[in-house]
Amino acid sequence: MQLFVERVLSLRMNVGDQMFKAEIKSETLKGLVNIISTLIDEVKFTINQEGMTLKAVDPAHVAMIELKVKAKAFESYSASETEIGLDLDKVKMVLKLAGQGDIIAMEQDENKGRFVFRIGNITRSMNLVDTSSMTDPKVPQLSLSANAVMMVDQLQKGIRAAESISDHIALRANPEFFELSCEGDTDDASLKLTIGTDLESLEVPSPVHSLFPLDYFANLLKAIPAGTKVRVELDSDYPVKLVFGLANGEAKVVYFLAPRIESD
Amino acid sequence: MQLFVERVLSLRMNVGDQMFKAEIKSETLKGLVNIISTLIDEVKFTINQEGMTLKAVDPAHVAMIELKVKAKAFESYSASETEIGLDLDKVKMVLKLAGQGDIIAMEQDENKGRFVFRIGNITRSMNLVDTSSMTDPKVPQLSLSANAVMMVDQLQKGIRAAESISDHIALRANPEFFELSCEGDTDDASLKLTIGTDLESLEVPSPVHSLFPLDYFANLLKAIPAGTKVRVELDSDYPVKLVFGLANGEAKVVYFLAPRIESD
Amino acid sequence: MQLFVERVLSLRMNVGDQMFKAEIKSETLKGLVNIISTLIDEVKFTINQEGMTLKAVDPAHVAMIELKVKAKAFESYSASETEIGLDLDKVKMVLKLAGQGDIIAMEQDENKGRFVFRIGNITRSMNLVDTSSMTDPKVPQLSLSANAVMMVDQLQKGIRAAESISDHIALRANPEFFELSCEGDTDDASLKLTIGTDLESLEVPSPVHSLFPLDYFANLLKAIPAGTKVRVELDSDYPVKLVFGLANGEAKVVYFLAPRIESD
Repeated sequence: MQLFVERVLSLRMNVGDQMFKAEIKSETLKGLVNIISTLIDEVKFTINQEGMTLKAVDPAHVAMIELKVKAKAFESYSASETEIGLDLDKVKMVLKLAGQGDIIAMEQDENKGRFVFRIGNITRSMNLVDTSSMTDPKVPQLSLSANAVMMVDQLQKGIRAAESISDHIALRANPEFFELSCEGDTDDASLKLTIGTDLESLEVPSPVHSLFPLDYFANLLKAIPAGTKVRVELDSDYPVKLVFGLANGEAKVVYFLAPRIESD
Repeated sequence: MQLFVERVLSLRMNVGDQMFKAEIKSETLKGLVNIISTLIDEVKFTINQEGMTLKAVDPAHVAMIELKVKAKAFESYSASETEIGLDLDKVKMVLKLAGQGDIIAMEQDENKGRFVFRIGNITRSMNLVDTSSMTDPKVPQLSLSANAVMMVDQLQKGIRAAESISDHIALRANPEFFELSCEGDTDDASLKLTIGTDLESLEVPSPVHSLFPLDYFANLLKAIPAGTKVRVELDSDYPVKLVFGLANGEAKVVYFLAPRIESD
Repeated sequence: MQLFVERVLSLRMNVGDQMFKAEIKSETLKGLVNIISTLIDEVKFTINQEGMTLKAVDPAHVAMIELKVKAKAFESYSASETEIGLDLDKVKMVLKLAGQGDIIAMEQDENKGRFVFRIGNITRSMNLVDTSSMTDPKVPQLSLSANAVMMVDQLQKGIRAAESISDHIALRANPEFFELSCEGDTDDASLKLTIGTDLESLEVPSPVHSLFPLDYFANLLKAIPAGTKVRVELDSDYPVKLVFGLANGEAKVVYFLAPRIESD
């Protein structure tokens, strides 16, 4: 009897309290999904009236992402406090059904444990992913001494130059320049960015240098839309922190990537 | 001696009576080949002065196609009664040699058992496929209670939404709407087409519903050029019949797909 | 002691005498690399003040290429007599970093045994390939009786028609036409080029005919930019010789391909 009452109350709560219903431009949703899915497939969005947030680490615990999307990033938005678990591989399939300029309507159907997408006369629904075992990682509070602001296009160019030379990429900041470089057994590549021509700003009290796994760094950078301004924060043998906006600035991404500590 | 006389007569008949020579726009030939090759590779065209026809079932006897191409679909056309067996994979290779707007000349060389294509200064000839064992399937005379007319683009959209959810797709017609839907273990997709916005016409005396293999349905629909008007005839647990035109209406396709009878 | 002196002198010579520094349009470099890499990956360029030359055979000794690039093909050029060994697979990776219209700066760093490419703010360096064991093949002096001049586009069309019919392609020249043809067990293809419409010139004292491996011929032709004029020199059961220009005529390629001698 006790159990029955609890279940009824629980159902009521679900119906009455947990709710999410929104519309978003397909391009905006695609931009967000592309970034997150470089790290992880099954994700938990934490939702309230202000918008949605996501904190996730990749399975190997090498990188972490913190995403905040304001309600304003949506065409329409109506939500109470809730959590939504989604499989991003499936969301990508939904995105393929949308054309340029299409609006995607989204709705949580808590009773059925479902999430529903609507694009024009198409309805696509999928089971919600169980979020009970997904805990939010703790976002590190780091004070990194050097920082530089640049277009992501510059970083993307550096990544292309580094590919197939080594598994790691070195980031280096001096008071005069910011450099990506890669050293292999027989080949080297580097991209040197200087203030005025390539960088929007550069603050480096003293030279810093760290080594990072190229694949993580490359996958993230390739997912950032061309023309996006990125702030890179760096210190010696500390994680690098990348901060950038999406959805016309209504979404903000903070990304941490652990360094490879050189043992020699 | 009797045999010899017969062979001579037969050769004479071939030379004198069996003949096919025509020119066709590469785009038109491509459109026809794309549709047929969703079902079968080696085909028999039955030819006379009026045009050419083809009746074929796929190896698993799940789908049937009936194609009629009028002489007017060709740029030039000259034929007596004959049969031509072709390997469509090879015809597709010929089509790749043609550019936009190219005219393809075709000729049966019965003496050498060859079929010759000419595109500009290129000549491409291939053995005729032996048609002696190819019998024409009997086209079923079905009176299906419901029908709807729509742009193929709508059906193509429904197919894309259904992919990777289930192996089957349900077609459903009500007096109010025509629906494609797909149910998987964890995912659903549906496309609801209504009169006025999505359908050109809809005649449904009473609701009908059938289940079809998605791969056959998808392969056919993807081969139909965007902007083609398709008539869908449907009944409960009967084959679906699709009727559409190609080659500016000078070719007509009737396609039947067997339902999957649900055993539960 | 003798050895030590020799080494010092040798190093001095390297520093003082061997030098190569040049700038080239990325499109020009790409055009040259595409042609050479149809035959061989690791190459030796012989360099002097006038320009650079390359002579190479493929590993199976079926084809030979002779390339001469004048200093004028470069945007800037400064060199003394030297040899440079490069891995073209790596040069192709460098070319992918260049955008349309980019200038690529190249420099030999003999002391470090390195070759350095610079594109804007990217620096990409690689070990020089050891050329000590690379001997220049002797370019045959052949007097072939027939020749024809045509746009490479025609030959490329003939190659497409021949593909997947046979491993060999026949070239045939008559006083009236030049023909590419291919005979398979069940399929034939041919391209007939006539003076006036398809050929710019045709000189054939008496008919000639040879058979060549299709893959070599196809790979070379696909690498030649559309719109390039090619001179084909042919004789019966002799190598075919193709002569064409690149880099606005500042580079010249001579290519020989050995015939397949028919044993029947």
